[in-house]
Amino acid sequence: MPADQTPDPSGGDKISFRDVKAEIRRRIERRIWGPGDLVPGEIDLAEDFGCARATVNRAMRELTEEGLLERKRKAGTRVRAMPLRQARFEIPLVRAEITAMGAAYHYALLSTQTVPAPDWLRDRLGLRAGARALHLRCLHSADGRPYQFEDRWINLQALPQAETADFALQGPNEWLVQAVPYSEVEISFLAAAATVDVAAALGIEPGEPTFTAERTTWWQSRAITHVRLSFARGYRMTTRY
Amino acid sequence: MPADQTPDPSGGDKISFRDVKAEIRRRIERRIWGPGDLVPGEIDLAEDFGCARATVNRAMRELTEEGLLERKRKAGTRVRAMPLRQARFEIPLVRAEITAMGAAYHYALLSTQTVPAPDWLRDRLGLRAGARALHLRCLHSADGRPYQFEDRWINLQALPQAETADFALQGPNEWLVQAVPYSEVEISFLAAAATVDVAAALGIEPGEPTFTAERTTWWQSRAITHVRLSFARGYRMTTRY
Repeated sequence: MPADQTPDPSGGDKISFRDVKAEIRRRIERRIWGPGDLVPGEIDLAEDFGCARATVNRAMRELTEEGLLERKRKAGTRVRAMPLRQARFEIPLVRAEITAMGAAYHYALLSTQTVPAPDWLRDRLGLRAGARALHLRCLHSADGRPYQFEDRWINLQALPQAETADFALQGPNEWLVQAVPYSEVEISFLAAAATVDVAAALGIEPGEPTFTAERTTWWQSRAITHVRLSFARGYRMTTRY
Repeated sequence: MPADQTPDPSGGDKISFRDVKAEIRRRIERRIWGPGDLVPGEIDLAEDFGCARATVNRAMRELTEEGLLERKRKAGTRVRAMPLRQARFEIPLVRAEITAMGAAYHYALLSTQTVPAPDWLRDRLGLRAGARALHLRCLHSADGRPYQFEDRWINLQALPQAETADFALQGPNEWLVQAVPYSEVEISFLAAAATVDVAAALGIEPGEPTFTAERTTWWQSRAITHVRLSFARGYRMTTRY
């Protein structure tokens, strides 16, 4: 049995949770169930659709996660008056992003240095005074054109093995993904004016609007890395939902 | 029974799918199950954890959606070699975003005009030559300071009632959410140089880097609206995952 189906105890044609979702969505779209309306209970719907209660439960749960329904512990399930919108962005490795466009990926390490963590970084990562950090500057290119400039700091207290790793051939992001299997991330997107450093790396003018991501990563409650990614002129981050 | 638990047929202490998820995540973190490893089958895990198979199934499904596991129809489930990262951003109504910061929300309609859709908009929305569109320019403020400039187009073929709606008191986004219960959305984020129009509305200099969102919305396969949102100086879009 495929993982996305629930057994139908009647033994007839299987009604999948996808069928139930589609039908509920249709009722909301057609205003058969209007904004704010109470939705019938799972038992009634299961009977109505001729399927298992678990099938209705999964459909309702996903429609709730998608922001169309609202479940209250004791007050039942309602159609959301204002559907909640949630956009999801996949954050691929830059190599995968570039090769997915059909372009040739090239990585270059511009500089690497072990230094005492500057104050702003110590604040950001919660490091003690005098803590050392590895500072890396890298350029990722697509078909020979600059695509993303990476300005990265790694906390050497948390990941001492980074100091002896060779980042000449492999980018620090790929190294980190292998060194740290799972992590908590805070990411921000902003529009920044290109600094002289960023402009030189990307081949743009200082001050040019630059799509920028700042990401801090924790593993087992310790900050391990902070990175500022500056994207080439014209970059757009797009998704559908 | 809470919606997030699965019955435990043994009748003992309930093991929730959250417990199972946490334990699987721990095994991945500790490398008990390494990157690329095949994970034991659901029946074995259910026995191991002393819970229902459906509980294991839900935990595995969610860990797959979160990008830690990879399921193949016949080849079983593996730990992803490169965890897939997915960031989720809630897209609230700007009123909710501003009031959530504890600031006073103010809306102003700057201009409204019914015009033949310009070529770029007809391309974008798939409109016939001569189609009319409603063009609205609005400003959303937080504690009296410009927060977001909204430059919106509404397809009057799809939503003729927009022509007579009153947008003086209620913003078009709130009106649209009520008029169209469910929709497909494409959204892009970019760093733009402020145009003269945007700069005047936001009180910044023309050419300043401006965090910008462009969003096109379809309902029942028809494009209904396209909007360009320009955010005030210093805006950051942040999430954790």
